[in-house]
Amino acid sequence: MSDVKKICAEISRQAKEASRKVANLSSQIKDNCLLRTAELILENRHSLQEENKKDLKAAEEKGLSSAFIDRLTLSDKVIDSMVQGLRDVVALPDPVGEVPRMWKRPNGLQVGRVRIPLGVICMIYESRPNVTIDAAGLCLKAGNAVILRGGSDAIHSNMALARIFHQALREFDIPEAAVQVVPVTDREAVNELLKREEEIDLVIPRGGEGLIRFVAENSRIPVLKHYKGVCHVYVDKYADIEMAQDICFNSKVQRPGVCNAMEGMLVHEEIAKTFLPAMAKRFKEAGVELRGCKKTLSILKDAVAATADDWGQEFLDLILAVKIVGSMDEAMDYISKYGSNHTEAIVTKDYERARRFLKEVDASLVLVNASTRFNDGGQLGLGAEIGISTSKLHAYGPMGLEELTTTKFIAYGDGQIRE
Amino acid sequence: MSDVKKICAEISRQAKEASRKVANLSSQIKDNCLLRTAELILENRHSLQEENKKDLKAAEEKGLSSAFIDRLTLSDKVIDSMVQGLRDVVALPDPVGEVPRMWKRPNGLQVGRVRIPLGVICMIYESRPNVTIDAAGLCLKAGNAVILRGGSDAIHSNMALARIFHQALREFDIPEAAVQVVPVTDREAVNELLKREEEIDLVIPRGGEGLIRFVAENSRIPVLKHYKGVCHVYVDKYADIEMAQDICFNSKVQRPGVCNAMEGMLVHEEIAKTFLPAMAKRFKEAGVELRGCKKTLSILKDAVAATADDWGQEFLDLILAVKIVGSMDEAMDYISKYGSNHTEAIVTKDYERARRFLKEVDASLVLVNASTRFNDGGQLGLGAEIGISTSKLHAYGPMGLEELTTTKFIAYGDGQIRE
Repeated sequence: MSDVKKICAEISRQAKEASRKVANLSSQIKDNCLLRTAELILENRHSLQEENKKDLKAAEEKGLSSAFIDRLTLSDKVIDSMVQGLRDVVALPDPVGEVPRMWKRPNGLQVGRVRIPLGVICMIYESRPNVTIDAAGLCLKAGNAVILRGGSDAIHSNMALARIFHQALREFDIPEAAVQVVPVTDREAVNELLKREEEIDLVIPRGGEGLIRFVAENSRIPVLKHYKGVCHVYVDKYADIEMAQDICFNSKVQRPGVCNAMEGMLVHEEIAKTFLPAMAKRFKEAGVELRGCKKTLSILKDAVAATADDWGQEFLDLILAVKIVGSMDEAMDYISKYGSNHTEAIVTKDYERARRFLKEVDASLVLVNASTRFNDGGQLGLGAEIGISTSKLHAYGPMGLEELTTTKFIAYGDGQIRE
Repeated sequence: MSDVKKICAEISRQAKEASRKVANLSSQIKDNCLLRTAELILENRHSLQEENKKDLKAAEEKGLSSAFIDRLTLSDKVIDSMVQGLRDVVALPDPVGEVPRMWKRPNGLQVGRVRIPLGVICMIYESRPNVTIDAAGLCLKAGNAVILRGGSDAIHSNMALARIFHQALREFDIPEAAVQVVPVTDREAVNELLKREEEIDLVIPRGGEGLIRFVAENSRIPVLKHYKGVCHVYVDKYADIEMAQDICFNSKVQRPGVCNAMEGMLVHEEIAKTFLPAMAKRFKEAGVELRGCKKTLSILKDAVAATADDWGQEFLDLILAVKIVGSMDEAMDYISKYGSNHTEAIVTKDYERARRFLKEVDASLVLVNASTRFNDGGQLGLGAEIGISTSKLHAYGPMGLEELTTTKFIAYGDGQIRE
């Protein structure tokens, strides 16, 4: 057995053992441990940043991009937001032990479902040390043990954060293996972890599409993920023009680099001439490049002609595909073909069309008269989120604390036997 | 591309296309179609049995076991129970469109979760033609398209059942591809289906452990399954002796060949001498072979000495492993080590021990003072079930109609944008 294989086997085994204890911790212990971790992060701000500097120096020497280095940096602001993140998680209700339903059978057996932790969760992510704390906080609160495999360029930062977490865990008599950072930066470690189906219950990859595809294709363990967000706003012929402009502008421009930003705008042909010119002006002022279909180009003379690749493209930038459609059915067919089951919105004043769009469009969030940017755990009211799932099993949409749990059946009997 | 590959690709593509239509059918249409299928099965009883005879003849010529042939036979009784099964599914409430929760955000956005079908479900099972109708009924009612791959020895029966289903589907203008039986008996077809992750949302294997392991190991698509049921009853020192005997007897003897039968009985040492002798007598009369630990043997002189293999063994027969434990903790450690997360029961009169067992034991159903045989969709009140899951993601325990669905988020806005 290779060393990496041995280390991963041992980490997984310890996580599984710890998970039994973590599952039965009281809410108070879990919360106090998270608050103590927050406190320790603040107390150790300086030494954390010293460790982080080792990673930053190596990243600079490797000539990594400034965007990369930005995500890697534990600035004061990032540290403060990690601390706030932990406190926010503490403020959320503990899902473990909740009984969403209970009923009685004709024989008197009282049956219910009770919420329980999943067990061991493995997070695989890029060189963003803040994810280490965010993920560990959510997993622990939901009663799970967590294995954290961050990008290798963040190894010093992640190990330093793990040490802080371990101190807090020790102070509350929680096994340190409840939160483990994988100490090997070798890529082989990811492959090994993805095989530990006996110990790990769920893998959550976070990062670019390449990382996520790699994890999905190599995992023997269930994976919750989304590859990309190709979100649309459909401006119906019965839209309130001003509202449609505000929603489309916000969906595209407020933060163009994220998965819930609008990448395609579909406009009903009966409203296109009224809607598009002022909308295009506003987009132009914000620096958005419009790539339009033929009909769009006949209205917007200075738009770029869209190529086949632009439909369904995740630009993550100030670029927008614009298509005029002849009907709502055409819009929904387009979304079914080019969407990524992430976020889809309609702007309309028509009751029946709103109902139909909500019912028939298959996406993790479908909105009427609101920005696509609301597809986010915090914005939807779930509290902090650990990611967004665009596949349907177990979770579809933002994953909060509840999605890090499952339910088991319980039954209270008085001697019932089966006839 | 091989022929089998082509056929599987085409089946999957058509199922996906059909699934969009099936997802939006009214409850009434779905129910009427299922009732019509039931009617047609009765009308075609004779021709169904003629087709079934072809399978039976081939099976006999192949020298397959009488148990195998029994499961393959479409007797009058089996046909009647398929028909009743469809009618039972019709009587269940339609889960699709249900809104389990809705809430309001501070900005006035009204957010909710609405229940939707999973999409395309692929069932892989052995030569039991009744599963064809049971599974198709449940999948259709939950708004899914289904691909049915039954054992090759049941191919004539399954194709005949599919023709009946298709007639009913046509009468209600539902695409025939909503219910497809894979017409190729080649094993390669299973491999090909397990790769169609773009079209198939969920795979449910049903049958022996070998089949299920094959599916789990080769699938790129999420799989819901249980490998085996190693269920225990723990007779606590505070048990009501008579109740404990009734529950243990029922758990073991009522139907020993199924996954929710008891395979191991754990007895607290302080009650063993009172409990075991009369219990052993009752088991002996029923023909149950007891395989005991050393302490058990000192009480039950004629019990067989258990070997290491007997602990955690799924006998599926009139054999029972018996172990005396020194404490409830020892019992729970044993269950954690040898159980299969299926069904675990405690018999006790002690309130706190009942609570602790319910909380700490990790199984899809944990019971107090009731038989393990209740782990079944019908018995727990879910209606018909499509199987039992012992892995935690998406479903843990019996899977009824609700487990064949997921939820998406919906949001009703009035022009909300993100700040």
